Amino acid sequence: MKKLINDPHNVVIESVRGFALAHAEHVTVQEDPMFVARAQEKESGKVALVSGGGSGHEPLHAGFVGHGMLDAAVPGAVFTSPTPDPILAATQAVDRGAGVLHIVKNYTGDVLNFETAAELAEAEDIKVASVVVNDDVAVEDSLYTAGRRGVAGTMLVEKIAGAAAERGDDLEGVTAVAQRVIDNVRSMGVALTACTVPHAGKPSFDLDDDEVEIGIGIHGEPGRHRIPMATADEITDQLLDPVVKDLSLAGGEKVIVLVNGMGGTPLSELYIMYARVAKRLGELNVEVAGSLVGSYITSLEMQGASVTLLKADDEMIELFEAPVNTVAYRKGM
Amino acid sequence: MKKLINDPHNVVIESVRGFALAHAEHVTVQEDPMFVARAQEKESGKVALVSGGGSGHEPLHAGFVGHGMLDAAVPGAVFTSPTPDPILAATQAVDRGAGVLHIVKNYTGDVLNFETAAELAEAEDIKVASVVVNDDVAVEDSLYTAGRRGVAGTMLVEKIAGAAAERGDDLEGVTAVAQRVIDNVRSMGVALTACTVPHAGKPSFDLDDDEVEIGIGIHGEPGRHRIPMATADEITDQLLDPVVKDLSLAGGEKVIVLVNGMGGTPLSELYIMYARVAKRLGELNVEVAGSLVGSYITSLEMQGASVTLLKADDEMIELFEAPVNTVAYRKGM
Repeated sequence: MKKLINDPHNVVIESVRGFALAHAEHVTVQEDPMFVARAQEKESGKVALVSGGGSGHEPLHAGFVGHGMLDAAVPGAVFTSPTPDPILAATQAVDRGAGVLHIVKNYTGDVLNFETAAELAEAEDIKVASVVVNDDVAVEDSLYTAGRRGVAGTMLVEKIAGAAAERGDDLEGVTAVAQRVIDNVRSMGVALTACTVPHAGKPSFDLDDDEVEIGIGIHGEPGRHRIPMATADEITDQLLDPVVKDLSLAGGEKVIVLVNGMGGTPLSELYIMYARVAKRLGELNVEVAGSLVGSYITSLEMQGASVTLLKADDEMIELFEAPVNTVAYRKGM
Repeated sequence: MKKLINDPHNVVIESVRGFALAHAEHVTVQEDPMFVARAQEKESGKVALVSGGGSGHEPLHAGFVGHGMLDAAVPGAVFTSPTPDPILAATQAVDRGAGVLHIVKNYTGDVLNFETAAELAEAEDIKVASVVVNDDVAVEDSLYTAGRRGVAGTMLVEKIAGAAAERGDDLEGVTAVAQRVIDNVRSMGVALTACTVPHAGKPSFDLDDDEVEIGIGIHGEPGRHRIPMATADEITDQLLDPVVKDLSLAGGEKVIVLVNGMGGTPLSELYIMYARVAKRLGELNVEVAGSLVGSYITSLEMQGASVTLLKADDEMIELFEAPVNTVAYRKGM
């Protein structure tokens, strides 16, 4: 295992400290229990958004803390849910009296621990609502998950619900927008290589030199099947087709596209995939109303990528376009 | 070789087309000869900045085309300088009558081809100035280079000179600012793995499972020496010490820090390195006036990182903080 780390057991805390030092104008970090919050003063009245989950997917979630997206992010150990304690602490810290929305990726540990934290917060008279993101069309049920997994679509939920909170929607309204995004966002991914969890010290699965895994999870959970290495266009089609089918996309509809790298994939390859996605959507007469290409939700150093489509109405598009000012995603401010 | 590509010989054109499709609000692409320019209308009066070089270092340079940085970027084949033709075409396209600054990384092919393009442009009465970035302290002379190589410091040259052009400095003034950055920026990198040029089909060098190369070039050119795999802190020190020494950094001085990933390195590892850089600079009583952490100047899928310091005066810091709106780097707008 070759990694730029010191102690495999201190990867998260050392990395979060570096993040806080590099971005003091954006974020503040509390260490025990650990969460990342906005550096700015709390304004009263706004609904607060909290997300979190196992580390190893950076910049998700801490990179999305800031105006227009999250109020706090709670990083767990690598690929391991945070416990209820830091989720509760983050929820208490960012509540402005208007309530807190928990945005949870659908993994059993995350769902349980966010539920417990929500109950504890409600016992202290903090209003908490929760949504569970389950955008991965690859498989039903999986390692760590009942139902579908939550993957890159989470970023779009955070962006659009964050914009709704920023414009002053109440907790019920922000929750409804978040749920509408979840109901209309679908993803599927591919792995070219495995990744190595630092404290495990060896790759989490094996892939032959000439095969890729279609439908991979962001923790290396098994996908649909393995195929021999193919062209970018063929692989992109294998990710895009199930997404298009699951959304029942029809001509004249609008989508927001996210082509996401898994951590070890060059940007140039993501753009080759994006060109294929754009061409295919054009053939379907589906309009691209917004696009993101980059490594936003990663799996450590895994080489691979995912394709996410959000079937978007005009309000979602307007919220997607709204200003955002976070470490990993900035626009319009 | 596992890559998300179609034809190894069409990687650049397909990727640039995807880039143009994804970011039509930011950039426009001309294909033959190929360059990437700002999508916005040309305003008169401003000095224009053109950079370019071999592809494979994305988001450099095309990702930095936009308000506050470049006016055009000229991508060559992977790790191969663009010819004079597209450099000339880009120069002609972006000149607003105030002249054009060429920002060139110090590789023999780039220097020659930009020189030729500058001569051709001057024959058409376009004023052209050139600066050559040579920030890599690892080695004197190298594969493809006489003198020091130009690496991640190029991004800071583009940012700061771009801001000077945006505020209305004339060609002489913008060139002087760019040169002052070059005179005060130093970098050094490390490779944990090699990278594979698509049309070569095999890794450009070999590294054992338990060794890293200190002082690597961004095309995999040999560095200073190989060492057994060490901790992030030890490796960071081996990159930082020569940079600090070469800049003769003293207490009370200010720096802008860039911890840059080579393409395949998780963001979390870059932040661990940043924490070490910040700690060491604190011990030296050197003030960090700005910081960037991310994969901005890459070497395809190489795992590794570099540390760049710019010894910055107040004007450079002000220009570094100025608004910028490009695909890969946005701030304040």
